[in-house]
Amino acid sequence: MKTILELQCSARKTRSITRELSAFFLQEWSKRQPKTRIICRDLSNTPPPFVTEEWIATVFGVEEADYTQVQKELLAPSDELIGELATVDLILMVTPMYNYGMPAALKAWFDQVIRVNKTFSFDLARGNQPIEPILSGKTLVILSSRGEGDFGLGEVNESMNHLETHISSCRHFLGVESEPYLVHVDYQEFGDTRFRASKEQAFRDIEALVFQLTDPNGHNPTSGTGNAEHI
Amino acid sequence: MKTILELQCSARKTRSITRELSAFFLQEWSKRQPKTRIICRDLSNTPPPFVTEEWIATVFGVEEADYTQVQKELLAPSDELIGELATVDLILMVTPMYNYGMPAALKAWFDQVIRVNKTFSFDLARGNQPIEPILSGKTLVILSSRGEGDFGLGEVNESMNHLETHISSCRHFLGVESEPYLVHVDYQEFGDTRFRASKEQAFRDIEALVFQLTDPNGHNPTSGTGNAEHI
Repeated sequence: MKTILELQCSARKTRSITRELSAFFLQEWSKRQPKTRIICRDLSNTPPPFVTEEWIATVFGVEEADYTQVQKELLAPSDELIGELATVDLILMVTPMYNYGMPAALKAWFDQVIRVNKTFSFDLARGNQPIEPILSGKTLVILSSRGEGDFGLGEVNESMNHLETHISSCRHFLGVESEPYLVHVDYQEFGDTRFRASKEQAFRDIEALVFQLTDPNGHNPTSGTGNAEHI
Repeated sequence: MKTILELQCSARKTRSITRELSAFFLQEWSKRQPKTRIICRDLSNTPPPFVTEEWIATVFGVEEADYTQVQKELLAPSDELIGELATVDLILMVTPMYNYGMPAALKAWFDQVIRVNKTFSFDLARGNQPIEPILSGKTLVILSSRGEGDFGLGEVNESMNHLETHISSCRHFLGVESEPYLVHVDYQEFGDTRFRASKEQAFRDIEALVFQLTDPNGHNPTSGTGNAEHI
């Protein structure tokens, strides 16, 4: 694993649980693979712009070679984010659940990077599946924190989870074929024993996951199970 | 029905399918209930700011009476959006599906209006259900357009739909107890017969839905079925 893209989006810089999780993940990772390059993109510090009518008209209607200076500037944030994404092997998506889904800044990132002829191609000649991802071979780890809990498969709040499920639906556009690795802290709003147990478990899960993903024996990291839960 | 909040979020001002749908909805509505007041909030023209660390610290940590001038200004967009929402009887949420979910601008709206002591109260003394909505009695209509299709219950892309499902999970915070009314246009990216049939059906659904919701016999609009699909 040569390069990690660390995507932060918690509005909190201090007292952020997700930032604690990612700091631990990267600390453990660096112990085992100190040469890994880590790119940090903090979407909370510099949120991507919302897409506009001009953005849509340009990406769908104009050949890149024909972009005007204004169009180049309009697409510059998207170019930068896609360029960053394209170079990495592992995406470390670090995200609290806000109102049962992604923080708006993270959704703004997805809306900038999922772009025709850059991260996907579209061809009606392919019939009912006209969309094909362009990027490939990346691993996705989602570290999340949720105010409530029981959002897993078969659990009572499963249908309320629009965070990891939504990210997973978009993962192919990021070049991620396999299911994401999930580590989460639950019941943050309650601050009770469930919260503390969940947080302790999350740190253990991260330790096991890093061990698995950096396995020097070269086992395929996407085929292991570790302690981290798959969607 | 005295007041409608029309929430627009398509980046497209021209060639927008969702804006066509809502224009038709409001035209039909005004024919039957010309005295209804309509508030239009265009989140694409004036997107809400992203929530920040200061925003979270203020709403969770400071009594409103003690807000500083800086905190008042920070919360002003949230106050305005919540004040607008609180006054209305029907929310007409007009939204394209972007990357299988809400446009980021619409998520930014949710993140500003779902606010402790304004749209929900939180009390751990309530046990496992500490959250209670503050607003009530509103009707929610979602008019959407999706590039692909078959996102309905039991359909092949059901698990990819993080738009209406996510909105519905948040609806209680908007004061909406009943399931939303859904009208959608599908297969927009294909531009084929399925798209045209879906669009024609959507206009028929809107006509029937307006008829149902403005029923002069006073039938409970939330108990009818009409042609519109419920989640």
